[in-house]
Parts: sequence; C-alpha cells; structure tokens
Amino acid sequence: MSAPPRFPQPTTQVASIPAMTPFVAPEELARRVGRSELLRLGANESAFGPSPRAIAAMREAVALTSWYGDPESLQLRAALAARHGCAVEEVVVASGIDELMGLIVRGFCAPGAACVATRGTYPTLFYHLNGFGGRAEFAEPNENGGLVPENIADAVRRSGAKLVYIANPDNPSGSFADRATLAALREVLPDDVLLFLDEAYADFVSPGELPPDAIDPRTIRTRTFSKAYGMAGARIGYALASAEVIATFQKLRLHFGVNRTAQIGALAALDDGAFMRGVIAEVERGRDEYHALAAAHALPSLPSRTNFVCIGIGSKADAEAMVAALLELGVFVRKPWAPPIDGFVRVTVGTVAERAAFAERFAEALDRVREKAVR
Amino acid sequence: MSAPPRFPQPTTQVASIPAMTPFVAPEELARRVGRSELLRLGANESAFGPSPRAIAAMREAVALTSWYGDPESLQLRAALAARHGCAVEEVVVASGIDELMGLIVRGFCAPGAACVATRGTYPTLFYHLNGFGGRAEFAEPNENGGLVPENIADAVRRSGAKLVYIANPDNPSGSFADRATLAALREVLPDDVLLFLDEAYADFVSPGELPPDAIDPRTIRTRTFSKAYGMAGARIGYALASAEVIATFQKLRLHFGVNRTAQIGALAALDDGAFMRGVIAEVERGRDEYHALAAAHALPSLPSRTNFVCIGIGSKADAEAMVAALLELGVFVRKPWAPPIDGFVRVTVGTVAERAAFAERFAEALDRVREKAVR
Repeated sequence: MSAPPRFPQPTTQVASIPAMTPFVAPEELARRVGRSELLRLGANESAFGPSPRAIAAMREAVALTSWYGDPESLQLRAALAARHGCAVEEVVVASGIDELMGLIVRGFCAPGAACVATRGTYPTLFYHLNGFGGRAEFAEPNENGGLVPENIADAVRRSGAKLVYIANPDNPSGSFADRATLAALREVLPDDVLLFLDEAYADFVSPGELPPDAIDPRTIRTRTFSKAYGMAGARIGYALASAEVIATFQKLRLHFGVNRTAQIGALAALDDGAFMRGVIAEVERGRDEYHALAAAHALPSLPSRTNFVCIGIGSKADAEAMVAALLELGVFVRKPWAPPIDGFVRVTVGTVAERAAFAERFAEALDRVREKAVR
Repeated sequence: MSAPPRFPQPTTQVASIPAMTPFVAPEELARRVGRSELLRLGANESAFGPSPRAIAAMREAVALTSWYGDPESLQLRAALAARHGCAVEEVVVASGIDELMGLIVRGFCAPGAACVATRGTYPTLFYHLNGFGGRAEFAEPNENGGLVPENIADAVRRSGAKLVYIANPDNPSGSFADRATLAALREVLPDDVLLFLDEAYADFVSPGELPPDAIDPRTIRTRTFSKAYGMAGARIGYALASAEVIATFQKLRLHFGVNRTAQIGALAALDDGAFMRGVIAEVERGRDEYHALAAAHALPSLPSRTNFVCIGIGSKADAEAMVAALLELGVFVRKPWAPPIDGFVRVTVGTVAERAAFAERFAEALDRVREKAVR
C-alpha cells in the first residue's frame, strides 16, 4: 500500500498527459540567443497587419474594455452568416481555431477514441488529443506532405475513428486539396464521421476552389482572423457547421471568452475587401520570391497555397541546423516535424524588406550549414 | 438493436451535459425589451474603466495585432510575481478566471468526483463541473449567503471531495471571509484537498485582510483584471499556486490563448496604483449610497466587500419581478440564485450619474412590483 499523496494531485487522466509545449515562442527563442527581437517569419503571422479599418475600430473600442464582449458575438455571427450564406445558428465564434479545436476534440472524440490526421499536420491537434485522452491515428502523407484520401479512408476503417482532421490548405506543408478531392473523400467516409476541416489559410485560396459554403451535417469548418486578416494577437476565429453540431459548443465553450475589442475589429475587417485583396496579391508575390530563392540555391520548395513556403535543406538534421543557424542570425522560422518533409524549413511571407533581409541571411545560414556538413 | 446514428454525435459524456447558459448577456436582454442599450449594472463591470495608462498602451498596441502574444506572458508574469512576492513559475496567465476555473476543474476534479462549494456562489463553477462530469457538493451558506467553514469541512468529509471552491469576496452575495477564518478552514481540510480561492474581487479588500501571499502547495488563488482594473472585455486573469500545480496548466491551457493587447494593457494597468486607489474609494462611496437607498425604501441590504450590493426585495418571486421591472425601465441587474438570498437583487456600483439614474428607476420599479403584489 502506498501512502496517500501529501498535497493535491491532478486527476489520473491529466497526470498521464505527456508534458508538451506545442510551440516555443519567438520571444523565448530571442531570449535564448540574447536578442531583443527577431525577424518573425516563423509563426505565419501576417506581415501586412490588420486592415486600417480594423485598427481604427479597435483603437476606438479599447476605451470600453471595461465591458464584457457579447457572449453570443451576435453582430459578428450575423455578418459571417451573411458572408457564408448560412444561418446565425450555424456559426460559433471563439478565441481562434486553437480553442475551437480543443472544443471539437473534447466534444467529438471520447477518451480512448481515435482521431485520424495526416502525419505531419498542425501539431496543436495532437496537443488537444493528448490533453483529452484521444488517440491519434495517422494517415501517411504524399511526397509533399499533403493528404492522401485513400490513406485517410483506410485509417478510419482500421481505427473506427469518428473524427477526421484535415487542415486545408495544410500547415506546415502548404499543400491544398481541391473541392473535388474533398467531396470524393467525404463520400467514402461513413456518415457518422465528423470531418473537421481546418481552413485557417483558406482566405488565400479563391472560394471557387474550396468546398461550397452549403452546410453539411457531417462536416465542421473552422476559419480565423489570425492569418490573411492579420489579427493573430486578437484571438478570434469561428466555425461553420449544422445547428446541431454548433449547439454542442453551447455546453462546452467559454461563453464570455472572446475579447471585446477583437469582436469589433473582426467585424470591421470583414468589411475591407480591398485590403484583403491587396494582402493576398502581396502574399502571392512573396511566395514566388521564396520559390525563386530556393531555386537560386538549387534547393527544392513545396507548392503552397498559404502565406508560407517550405524550402528543402536536406536531411532532418540539416533542416534543424538551418533553423538554428537562422536563429543565430536573428531569424525566426520553424520546420515540419514529420517525414517526408522534415528536411524542409518553413518560412512565412514577410514584407518586401523582410523578404530581402531573409534572402541575405538565408544564404549566410546555408553556407554555415553546408560548411558544417562538409567537415 | 437501435440503428447507428446517421450523423456525427458528441461523446456520451458531452451529450449528457445539461443545456445551460451561464448568463444571458445584457445585449440579448436589451434585444428582448426592444432597447438598443441598457444601464449596465448587472455584470459587475467597472464603471470607471481601465486606467488611462492601460488605455494608452492598448491603443498603441493594436497596430501590432498581427502578432501573437507571448504564450508564456513572461513580462506580465514577472511583474505579477514581483507584486505578490513569488516566483514566475508560481504564476499562470489565462483569458480570465472563467478559463482558469475550467482548467482547475478539468485538472483536479475527475469525472464523477465531487467539488465542494457554498450553495449560491458563482454559477460558472457549476457550468464547468457539469461540462467535465464533476459533481457539485453544496455547503449551506449563512444568513447573508456567505461561507460557513464547518459546513464546508462537513461537505468535504461526507463527499470525499479533493477540490473546494471559495469565492472571496463572494459573488453574488458580496460577503467576505477574513484571513483568520480561511486559515482555520485550510487547517481542518485534508492536505490533499486543493482549495481554489477565487479572488476576483480581492482588489477591493486591503491586502492585510486577505490570506498572505506566501504560496501554499494546497491552495490556488485566482485574480483578474476584469473587476477593479476595469478590463473585463480584455479577458485576462491569473492564478498563483505552487510550481507543481502551475505545471499542470502547461498540459491543459491554450498556450496562445491570451490576447496580445490585453497582455500589454494589463502590464500598464499594474503600474497605475493611483488610479486603482481612486476606483476603490469611489466603489466604497457607491456601496454606501446603495445601502442608503435600500434603507430609504425600508429594505435590507447585504454587507459587501465588492463593487456590488445585494438589496432585499422580498420573496424570490418579488426579486424576479424586480429584475424584470428594472429591465423594462432599461436597467440591467441580476439576482442571486439560491436561498437564503434569492429574494435579493444585485446591483453593480455605477458612476455618480448612473447611481442617480438607478435610484430613480429603482423606486419606480419597486412601486410596480409592490402594486402587483397588492393586487
């Protein structure tokens, strides 16, 4: 018999969660190399900021920070419903996709149950699966780190998973599955499997290439203001699903969890289509530059429909050395965690000046990595 | 044998959660009575706003909303650690106490296990207990709705609870248990019981009356910028506990969940002691006015150490009628949900002008309620 614990202990399930920090922050990385700031190209933040209209609306809103935001986010949900041609009851707003992801895992993947995802995709999914006692069942990716529909369907069959996660466009690979591919996949999945389509980067893709907006009771789609809208620090995102699925969130979500200024900023941002088109065009130019940069160094790069590009350095160890060498030079990037693309580094599109600075330091870091490899 | 579900279903545990909206928002209440706004005295928001320094800092910060906040909130935690004389590792920052409360329930109250709380206290605790499958074990309150240490100790003994929740000062009663009372209670609780002290309103009490800041491995204390600091809409709060207890949050919390502007505003707010002293003094004046208002109508009021006062209307039905009558007159207040104080309404301290407007409409609403009662 063991002695009873002297001090309070977490629950058995929580105690069994592996210690895992989803991402080390650029602030912490800067501290590690003794710098006060870094060229931030590692978290897919927008280099082009929020819309000036959103900034103006938020500037005005902060004086009323003493008020809670509307827990139903009704004005914003109405605007989103109008945009997506659905009902207000088919939209839920939360503090970004990370929060929605936790709620989806908690709501639809019981402890011990499986969730299928392509190996290599967005790590925060696995943080939440670990956290709620779910089990990741991997589908193997294609050579670009993208999804393979048959592998996903197979993984569902062998695991009995009732939840499938697809980031589309995918992070960290940047790959994209078109409308027809997703429709075909949806059709081979059993109807009681919830398809969780994480569309954080979908604003960089034209709507005609994405699944249609019509609500499918078997699918939940998440969107964010963190990427193309340039509002990562605001923590605001939303999900589109059937009213039944959305109703489950009412039992789980933090009702007063969304920042009031973020609600107001998001509403203003939705209204500034011209700004968004400018951002999207500049991101395309930036991607082209990064592909050209890779080619100039005789390195491969992955096709991307997002605001980042993966550049192949060599082996996993080479890519890790490259991330470290760039950090030493004051540049923050990350890298994919799983084969076959764990020999790549992932760089976010910056401003023109940031891209120029990156190109310079990239060349220098590459020299250092290659020198080391030769030794 | 029943047919398999056609569409995705939530987990059995989540399906069993009772539908429950913790609070109907003033925005929704206004819509119900066809008003565009209400005199907001129902959510204990600060009538005195954030510190001008916090407003200025947040105004400046919004332009960089494109960046995520530091997931470790290191600068803010360092400032909080200095203030409370503890280590940075003994502080965690999250999106307000509501989020911390969910994490504490999830972390320290297993499904089916009990959590002891005084009947009538802050309803969001029960929202989270329901949500994570915990079980509320009530300790009966005293005549003012405040805690009774022996009742709490009894409830722990009979339920085997490993988690005890105490809001101090309490919401919605406003009652306060002093340092000696809490120390005596802590001593009779088993050492493996986590005492969750929710100190949302503690800034209205002088530090000498509160438990000392020294970290107790058996206790977790939560604080917020939502009340005295006037930053409810920012969603930012923190917890103080042993490094071991705080480490559990690293496995559960939304690492990138805190709004960046809120982090910056909170840091600036901490620095403005003169503003806080002014808020606290004005809140005391406001409470005195509400007590005098109750007395002028020959109604009882409860002692309060918070930014609100409970005024006794009569029966539970009378108090409900009073809340409805005030809403018809454009005033948003709430009321305690449990005996013996469910015949009271709870009103937040407003500005001088808001208090004057409230006094007028209170008299009118009271007339209506009394007329109805006579009929």
